[in-house]
Amino acid sequence: MQTMFRYNWIIREQWYKWCEDVPYEELIRRRTGGVGGILHTLFHVVDVEWSWIRIIQGKTDFQESFDNYNTIEKIRQLDRVFRPEVEEFVNAWNESLEARPFVDVRPDGRIETFAWGEVARHVSAHHIHHMGQLSVWAREIGKQPVSANLIGKGLIRIDN
Amino acid sequence: MQTMFRYNWIIREQWYKWCEDVPYEELIRRRTGGVGGILHTLFHVVDVEWSWIRIIQGKTDFQESFDNYNTIEKIRQLDRVFRPEVEEFVNAWNESLEARPFVDVRPDGRIETFAWGEVARHVSAHHIHHMGQLSVWAREIGKQPVSANLIGKGLIRIDN
Repeated sequence: MQTMFRYNWIIREQWYKWCEDVPYEELIRRRTGGVGGILHTLFHVVDVEWSWIRIIQGKTDFQESFDNYNTIEKIRQLDRVFRPEVEEFVNAWNESLEARPFVDVRPDGRIETFAWGEVARHVSAHHIHHMGQLSVWAREIGKQPVSANLIGKGLIRIDN
Repeated sequence: MQTMFRYNWIIREQWYKWCEDVPYEELIRRRTGGVGGILHTLFHVVDVEWSWIRIIQGKTDFQESFDNYNTIEKIRQLDRVFRPEVEEFVNAWNESLEARPFVDVRPDGRIETFAWGEVARHVSAHHIHHMGQLSVWAREIGKQPVSANLIGKGLIRIDN
């Protein structure tokens, strides 16, 4: 669980860097699929990661619009604000949290219960899914996408 | 680690089902990004999942071409052949395998060492990444993609 979050942070930083060489019109262009654009996707994954971590702990989440975060600088700044709290949560993760219930009351009044371990993995998978979408859009622009490789990033200690 | 594999199997089955309502020309059409098409992607993730599990165990991997697996029936059949072996490996996973070294000798003679835990997560992330690409292509065809949600699939037991 921790490995997947750390992987996602590395990949996200690489996409921020990737964006630096792409014209702003392309970053903001409306595209087919997902949330509809490159910067919007990066904003979305930062938002969703922090929001889920907050929600399961019973804290308020993030309700702002992409319109206020529509540059790479603003998204990076938001990420810098959110990341320490997410990192603290992820670093403190342990087995006893896996099956802890989170009771989700939906806007329509329906109640669903999820395990914290499910939510944590949902957040990781959500991030990877959206980076997959970015990889298609990158090719549409004619640019090589950020590699999705998890191996070779030193994320897990290797036995001698 | 096990949860992510089980999640991917559910999602893969849902994509197979999704394909049943899509004209063959769309499934086989050459597209921008990834391995370049819907069926080719499904073949690719089945191939890569099995191959990695085999390779780290020192067994031979799968070297066949998509040309021989270019229908949903053939891919499902291949998956049925490979899945039991992957499931057995995943079900037997335990903490002691996380840091076990896998020494990878590349075609150019370079040697890289990865932890088994890294490889397992790489395979999971690889699958999710490619399903993200499918979700963009689904919208290009005008169809709703399979949901990437990990929550709500009963993948982790919830404490009472």
